Amino acid sequence: MSQHPPSLRTTIRRKADRGHYNAPSIHAIVDAAFVCQIAFNASGSVHCLPTACWRDGDYLYIHGAGNSRLIDALLAAEAAVSITHLDGLVLARSAFHHSMNFRSVAIYGQFTEVTAVDDKAAAMHAFLEHVSPGRSALVRAPSPAELAGTRILRLALHEAAAKIRNWGVEDSADDMDIPVWAGVVPLGLRASAIVAEAGCADFPPPTLPSSLQEEPSP
Amino acid sequence: MSQHPPSLRTTIRRKADRGHYNAPSIHAIVDAAFVCQIAFNASGSVHCLPTACWRDGDYLYIHGAGNSRLIDALLAAEAAVSITHLDGLVLARSAFHHSMNFRSVAIYGQFTEVTAVDDKAAAMHAFLEHVSPGRSALVRAPSPAELAGTRILRLALHEAAAKIRNWGVEDSADDMDIPVWAGVVPLGLRASAIVAEAGCADFPPPTLPSSLQEEPSP
Repeated sequence: MSQHPPSLRTTIRRKADRGHYNAPSIHAIVDAAFVCQIAFNASGSVHCLPTACWRDGDYLYIHGAGNSRLIDALLAAEAAVSITHLDGLVLARSAFHHSMNFRSVAIYGQFTEVTAVDDKAAAMHAFLEHVSPGRSALVRAPSPAELAGTRILRLALHEAAAKIRNWGVEDSADDMDIPVWAGVVPLGLRASAIVAEAGCADFPPPTLPSSLQEEPSP
Repeated sequence: MSQHPPSLRTTIRRKADRGHYNAPSIHAIVDAAFVCQIAFNASGSVHCLPTACWRDGDYLYIHGAGNSRLIDALLAAEAAVSITHLDGLVLARSAFHHSMNFRSVAIYGQFTEVTAVDDKAAAMHAFLEHVSPGRSALVRAPSPAELAGTRILRLALHEAAAKIRNWGVEDSADDMDIPVWAGVVPLGLRASAIVAEAGCADFPPPTLPSSLQEEPSP
């Protein structure tokens, strides 16, 4: 696990107390994500698209189909990736001081392709374990043709910054007597009752990742 | 509520059955969001940053501080915005056919600034009502100085496309006898027990937006 000083474009200037540049903070936010947002330029336009993601070591991984235009575009130029977890609505006594609690990561750099078959198999294994720990041992593994038809890219987490707000209301002293409920509504991505395919209801239910089981912090 | 045909860059080519271009579909996905992701170019680099958002009519709104570099950058060039709701993990019998259920919107265009004081006040009112319906009548409204210190941008939802996957497992016929649980783990952003500021516990609790109260669909 490596430490990297903030770059010019990852240094958080506004509300700098919310910025974190250490790898454990960045990794924890990435590990709680199933989807990232990727900004890139292609065909003369800027784009912002979501895609599934996972982490292995100091890299963020994504995958796509063999004919994916996103994959082609990301190999052609630098990208910026954002991961954001909305952790709460912060309800103040004044409209102006309302806020949100969140954990986010911004990552900059050039995606590169994972091409060796063994590396691709290991990456897809890590992806499935991220989605449901232990599941790789239970399902049919990718065939050679499926692996060949899947393109896998990774982006180093070296030029990255985390931003976190995880506290309560910050109202002005003049507003403290306004008779209204103020506080935090904690939010989090949660699983509800699983829905089995026909014939599957009697098999052991899937293991869910820990990020879906924790209660959000206020 | 207007309808707009897909443009070259909003036309979904891969898995085109997941694409939706009608305003009600796009508006519903935007309305369920508190945060959007914005891609833009500035200082010779592409960026992807999250920010709070809300909708009024056929526009997506964001806000920022007077000295926000994001706001300056968005007024200088076109942007792309992504909103994504992760609705479920789709667990198949084969590693390859795992998927995710989601609702996403991609929007392209040029943000413009809302400058008239009345329009800014109306936009901030709509923002707070989006976060907690009815709350504008209970809290202190923005002062002229607070409004002056807040910059508000909006982006037309004209060049936009929604993408939705909301169904079950699609395994190959050859894999149907693999003895493993297959199905959908529904996911959704949910509120947990509210946390009151000191002295606020006896006031009526805040009204939460309907998007936080619904059970996610499988």
